Amino acid sequence: MKRITWSLLVVALALGTGSLLSARRASQGSATGPEAAVRAILDEQQSAWNEGKVDVFLEGYWNSDGLTFSGSQGITRGFAGVQERYRRSYPDRQAMGKLDFTGLEVRVLNPDAALVLGHWHLTREKGDIGGVFSLVFRRFPEGWRIIHDHTSVVAGS
Amino acid sequence: MKRITWSLLVVALALGTGSLLSARRASQGSATGPEAAVRAILDEQQSAWNEGKVDVFLEGYWNSDGLTFSGSQGITRGFAGVQERYRRSYPDRQAMGKLDFTGLEVRVLNPDAALVLGHWHLTREKGDIGGVFSLVFRRFPEGWRIIHDHTSVVAGS
Repeated sequence: MKRITWSLLVVALALGTGSLLSARRASQGSATGPEAAVRAILDEQQSAWNEGKVDVFLEGYWNSDGLTFSGSQGITRGFAGVQERYRRSYPDRQAMGKLDFTGLEVRVLNPDAALVLGHWHLTREKGDIGGVFSLVFRRFPEGWRIIHDHTSVVAGS
Repeated sequence: MKRITWSLLVVALALGTGSLLSARRASQGSATGPEAAVRAILDEQQSAWNEGKVDVFLEGYWNSDGLTFSGSQGITRGFAGVQERYRRSYPDRQAMGKLDFTGLEVRVLNPDAALVLGHWHLTREKGDIGGVFSLVFRRFPEGWRIIHDHTSVVAGS
């Protein structure tokens, strides 16, 4: 009997420690997690772009027909539509240039959704271009993804 | 004793009915509530604009320094900044024209936040203008308000 009691105590302590760790992880997830996670996605996008890997850049977007991208061409719908838009607008490394995201502002709307404002700039031989973007991110089982992108060109930016 | 039993039954039924009504109201609040609420705000904005009441139109925005408005002029900050931007861009009824919001898509992100995509069009003597917008709404004690607006002009729209 004594051995069984000790075993139960060990199991209870293990479960207790487990719960504490889970609770800590959950609170990190809701407090600092979303901001760090979406910043990591944007960092990866910037790196992928600057290596000429548009498909890796596109992995930051929600791979769904529900994805939307708004701008001076109206509203582009679906992942395939957004992919096509990027390929058409940036056919080669020269058109892509060097991308910089700056002035990022992450506003967490809830543990599973965030709004991100920022500035983008492409340094290019044929002339720089830049502007501002607004992104809405949602958390999916596979991670945070952009579900809506609204991008504008700003003259002289 | 019999009278007490009946009284308890009446109280129990009353509490039960009350709970059902609360539950129904709560489910409306989370399911159809946010969409109806943000559509009502946009309807009110459209009407106010078409009556030349820019200040009433602006009541749809969060009256805070945290309000942001992105577009081809970059990021405008704070309610006062957005108000100034509207007054500068639309100094009179002729510049304001007749406003139509169309193709509204409301995506509820949670019971207190929503993303709204849509098209805007101004019918004006000096030439029509239009485009697309993305709005992020949040629910405050005083109601739903736009906390971020990203608006683009789309040629020929």
